[in-house]
Amino acid sequence: MRAFFNPEGIMIIGASAKPGKIGHTVLESLINSYHGRICPVNPKGGEIMGLEVYRSISEAPECDLAVIALPAEKVPEAVEEFGKSGGKAVIVISGGFRELGGRGAELESEMVEKARKYGIRIIGPNCIGVLDTHSGVDTFFQPRYAMKRPFRGHISIITQSGAVGIIALEWLAERGVGVDKFISYGNKADVDEIDALNYLKDEDSTRVIGIYLEGLNRGREFLKILREVSRKKPVVIIKAGATAHGARAAKSHTGSLASDIRVFEGAIKQSGGIIAKDMETFMESMSLLSMEKVPKGGKVAIVTNGAGPCVLLSDKIGESDTIFMARLSEKTVKSLRKELPPIVSLENPLDLTGSAGPEWFDTAISHLENDDGVDVIIAALTLQDEPLAANWQKLPRILSGRKKPVMVMASGGEFTKKVSYEIQRKGVPVIEFPDRLIGALENSVRWGRKIGK
Amino acid sequence: MRAFFNPEGIMIIGASAKPGKIGHTVLESLINSYHGRICPVNPKGGEIMGLEVYRSISEAPECDLAVIALPAEKVPEAVEEFGKSGGKAVIVISGGFRELGGRGAELESEMVEKARKYGIRIIGPNCIGVLDTHSGVDTFFQPRYAMKRPFRGHISIITQSGAVGIIALEWLAERGVGVDKFISYGNKADVDEIDALNYLKDEDSTRVIGIYLEGLNRGREFLKILREVSRKKPVVIIKAGATAHGARAAKSHTGSLASDIRVFEGAIKQSGGIIAKDMETFMESMSLLSMEKVPKGGKVAIVTNGAGPCVLLSDKIGESDTIFMARLSEKTVKSLRKELPPIVSLENPLDLTGSAGPEWFDTAISHLENDDGVDVIIAALTLQDEPLAANWQKLPRILSGRKKPVMVMASGGEFTKKVSYEIQRKGVPVIEFPDRLIGALENSVRWGRKIGK
Repeated sequence: MRAFFNPEGIMIIGASAKPGKIGHTVLESLINSYHGRICPVNPKGGEIMGLEVYRSISEAPECDLAVIALPAEKVPEAVEEFGKSGGKAVIVISGGFRELGGRGAELESEMVEKARKYGIRIIGPNCIGVLDTHSGVDTFFQPRYAMKRPFRGHISIITQSGAVGIIALEWLAERGVGVDKFISYGNKADVDEIDALNYLKDEDSTRVIGIYLEGLNRGREFLKILREVSRKKPVVIIKAGATAHGARAAKSHTGSLASDIRVFEGAIKQSGGIIAKDMETFMESMSLLSMEKVPKGGKVAIVTNGAGPCVLLSDKIGESDTIFMARLSEKTVKSLRKELPPIVSLENPLDLTGSAGPEWFDTAISHLENDDGVDVIIAALTLQDEPLAANWQKLPRILSGRKKPVMVMASGGEFTKKVSYEIQRKGVPVIEFPDRLIGALENSVRWGRKIGK
Repeated sequence: MRAFFNPEGIMIIGASAKPGKIGHTVLESLINSYHGRICPVNPKGGEIMGLEVYRSISEAPECDLAVIALPAEKVPEAVEEFGKSGGKAVIVISGGFRELGGRGAELESEMVEKARKYGIRIIGPNCIGVLDTHSGVDTFFQPRYAMKRPFRGHISIITQSGAVGIIALEWLAERGVGVDKFISYGNKADVDEIDALNYLKDEDSTRVIGIYLEGLNRGREFLKILREVSRKKPVVIIKAGATAHGARAAKSHTGSLASDIRVFEGAIKQSGGIIAKDMETFMESMSLLSMEKVPKGGKVAIVTNGAGPCVLLSDKIGESDTIFMARLSEKTVKSLRKELPPIVSLENPLDLTGSAGPEWFDTAISHLENDDGVDVIIAALTLQDEPLAANWQKLPRILSGRKKPVMVMASGGEFTKKVSYEIQRKGVPVIEFPDRLIGALENSVRWGRKIGK
């Protein structure tokens, strides 16, 4: 497995000189981020983007990893050739295999047979491959102008669907949240979620794992490895193909059948896994777990300069069995009364009104974090309001480095996004809407409970 | 009510020369967009941003509308003076009234008494006032660098909470969706949701109405006017203060008590109103209803170049009682087989694979819209994939102007957002995630059913 992430040399079999072709974009992605040896292979030879092109696999220098972007028909032979050349691992980007049935399924079996013969591991086919922000491996055929790559960080993602993976990666990149490794395994002819989990279990750079699953072929083994990994780090799982329609869609997509969702979710939770109910909660949960201290419990204090969104947030808290509104201690109320202006009514949510600048938030949070009845502080910010907007530079410092977890809820346009990004880069999560915030926070509180915080 | 939106002259009582003060930013907002007479009033006199400042209300030229940004104590007298000067309508931005109880509540009553004496209508207090994209009235104390204003369009918003209103407006502005009028009524000392609905009922420029509600003082009258308006245009409602916690938060926010949510939602639906279950569905529903043709029914055909998100979408459809997967007719399947490459498996969702360019989508949509069993077409786009990304300029034309409603599901970073914006400007809604798409589409289908499409 190590050869996928830290290879000595990468061969691109099916490299293309034509912009727009998959074999061109993959090469471009690698040139942009991988600093080891890159060997394009194409019978035409010549040169692409300044690199010498080898006419055949046997002519190319030995490489640990090959990325194959050839028509399905030609893949089994290429795998054999690469095996002979001493290669260790192959990522097959191409589609046209088991997902089409018939001849496609046969080709997939042939390819696997060849690989086994030479002890080669395969990721794919029908996938977008691997991203490793540390080693620079990047096999995406999504050009950089169309898809932003994330920073180096601590989230690793395992996904059956490339498209879902792309959404998650860009979502994290846009918010300044870092990623470690990414594995899109498509038809999982060889490497599957179990192999990937097993590998990531001992990678110290990975602190949070996210998995998008459609079907499972080795259910029991998956739960076993999930239980092991979940002792060390949180694993957030989103399962698709839950309904009959979804299952049919999943089947035609990567050729595996989805199982009954409720049984599945129960088993996941029992094994220590964390379920995300939708894509946004999936991303928010990974992001939150990678960023903030884990809360000691679910008692929340809210402080705001715009109450409406907090009423909606309170509603969501009222529906939760994990998150509760904290009751502020008499001491806290007394201190707040002394230091905040009289227009602030001393309840939870603590409404500082639209006149609040960063200092009022500083005062409020300082007292709330000293209250034993408070586990998490949510600052619900209307960043468009003048006193906050004009002094936003003070916010990242005020919100970060607190004794207790602080989260921000804020939604808006360009300006709000810019401020949110800066706050998030300081390790304070910013979530836009109440339901997503509560969904992610519930997962974080449950994780905290599990690891005995 | 007309004086709020099309006033002859606007007085700013409490105008300030100091940047950062509410009385300064409101003046700036008006100067930026209102082309009628603007009269700042401040006892200090002088000049602000090139405008002559009047020392008193009586010295200023007659104006229909006054925006008041004075401490609560001074507001009743200002209303009286403005009444004497011949004014018709007042927007009170200031807080410090009923929401604080005690003296604040008294001041609010005094203010209302003065207004009644002179036949003046009041919006507020404790609000952000009015935005009218046609007349240019803009009383926001949110500076333009921190809050983008929306285009001229057909959605009008009525909101008890300014902060929720700001989020909705910027959300629409960022997506290029147009707005007609906006009313933030805060404590609703006089004008409430009923007056606002009554006014918007006959405004032809308003085609969709959105309401954020915390409490209702005149429930029966509200349902009556809702029934009337809903005969002509869709009214989307989000209700906060649903739980005990939310209700407490709502109470301290604008001083009214929230009622039981389930009873309320039932009554709203019976009166033809449309319920949004969360903020994002609120915005998506308004946006969708303002944009696309109303579907004839809930049978959906999906076409995609990245199947994973469609499996999640199929799951959501499987859970819906309003939206269903269409069964493609034999004729459609036959035509698709003839014109699309063999790697496309002819099911619904129709997976064109990552190799699909705009032309494949064109072909697919042309056949799907001719299928009588299809009411709505969803193009689930992975815009990061090369063949689509490199030829994205063709997409707005291909997707718009179809016989049947077409919606796009796409999620990503900067590039995806740019393309989505261009598609949306052509009247084709783009929604990021499955649950939001289905939430909004359900509302659209229900509306279509109601008006007998």
